[in-house]
Amino acid sequence: MPTPIDFYFDFSSPYGYLASRRIDALAAAHGREVNWRPILLGVAFKATGAAPLPQLPLKGPYSMRDFLRSARFHGIPYRQPTTFPVSTIAAARAFYWLQARDRAKAVEFARALYNAYFTEDLDLSKPENVIQVAARFGVDAAELGAALNDPAVKEKTKTEVDAAVARGVFGSPYIVVDGEPFWGMDRLDQIERWLEKGPF
Amino acid sequence: MPTPIDFYFDFSSPYGYLASRRIDALAAAHGREVNWRPILLGVAFKATGAAPLPQLPLKGPYSMRDFLRSARFHGIPYRQPTTFPVSTIAAARAFYWLQARDRAKAVEFARALYNAYFTEDLDLSKPENVIQVAARFGVDAAELGAALNDPAVKEKTKTEVDAAVARGVFGSPYIVVDGEPFWGMDRLDQIERWLEKGPF
Repeated sequence: MPTPIDFYFDFSSPYGYLASRRIDALAAAHGREVNWRPILLGVAFKATGAAPLPQLPLKGPYSMRDFLRSARFHGIPYRQPTTFPVSTIAAARAFYWLQARDRAKAVEFARALYNAYFTEDLDLSKPENVIQVAARFGVDAAELGAALNDPAVKEKTKTEVDAAVARGVFGSPYIVVDGEPFWGMDRLDQIERWLEKGPF
Repeated sequence: MPTPIDFYFDFSSPYGYLASRRIDALAAAHGREVNWRPILLGVAFKATGAAPLPQLPLKGPYSMRDFLRSARFHGIPYRQPTTFPVSTIAAARAFYWLQARDRAKAVEFARALYNAYFTEDLDLSKPENVIQVAARFGVDAAELGAALNDPAVKEKTKTEVDAAVARGVFGSPYIVVDGEPFWGMDRLDQIERWLEKGPF
């Protein structure tokens, strides 16, 4: 059985969202599974000195245009969130908490969180919105609300994010196939070649 | 006659080099010409606060790997220059000086400069190397040597670079089609769609 693909992403990342709409089908076409691994770009940016795209002169305005155009190019629904970017720590904690209970459901939940932020304009920095999305999957609101403040859940999330950065993850999406790192939605073509024919 | 494509690039930019090997054929396939416009990334980086990729933690090592892999992916010869990145002001000045004399020859010269840096490991920051490449096109060494110190040539180059940054150019390659900006070798697919079917 080939090793799963590691898919690192931040729930507030437009290119992470776009990749999330393609990565499973791409992997499945080559008999691979995908390990969804939310991270926090703010932590990664501290390691690289990077800043969120919208804050950068010239690059900021270009990026806002490119998010929308890239979504149209790939035929993926996209609505620029009103509040952007946002901290996605509640979303990441909720994901890892649910993953420990039901891995498959956690992936469905991740998809729903991405859709909520990038098509429904639901602000994911608010725990109550994360809880609302989880409720669609039968997750008890009070239980998840308590989990978001559980030190063990906080620690698990921190461990995951720190391990990602220690591994070299500095952006979103950041995809690792057979130990080979690929950064960006733009590298899905190279990933496809790798899955088809192996290292190049 | 459709408007030409503006192709902004720095002679020290790996992705600019990769794009330079594809842009003319892509444009010609859709009846377009390409306006080659060397810039200086150092000037653009001052506007955005960006730094050369190799200097960045995590992103630097990734990029060095991605340059080579992307070249292999696209089937383009590539040798990582020993000294990288370098100031390409002499190359840019030589280009604009030659362009005023022979536009077509200036493009051939630009291609040769890129090949010299990325396949022959010739350090383009040294004026004598730029002059050596120009000599392959019958350019007189003494004449170009004098031109590189000519205030008018310096001013022309500065004007071109400043105008590019004023227009929003912040990276390399940065390609403008019908007023629409595309940043990166990764956007050649979107450019192709645009040239084929118009705005999307």
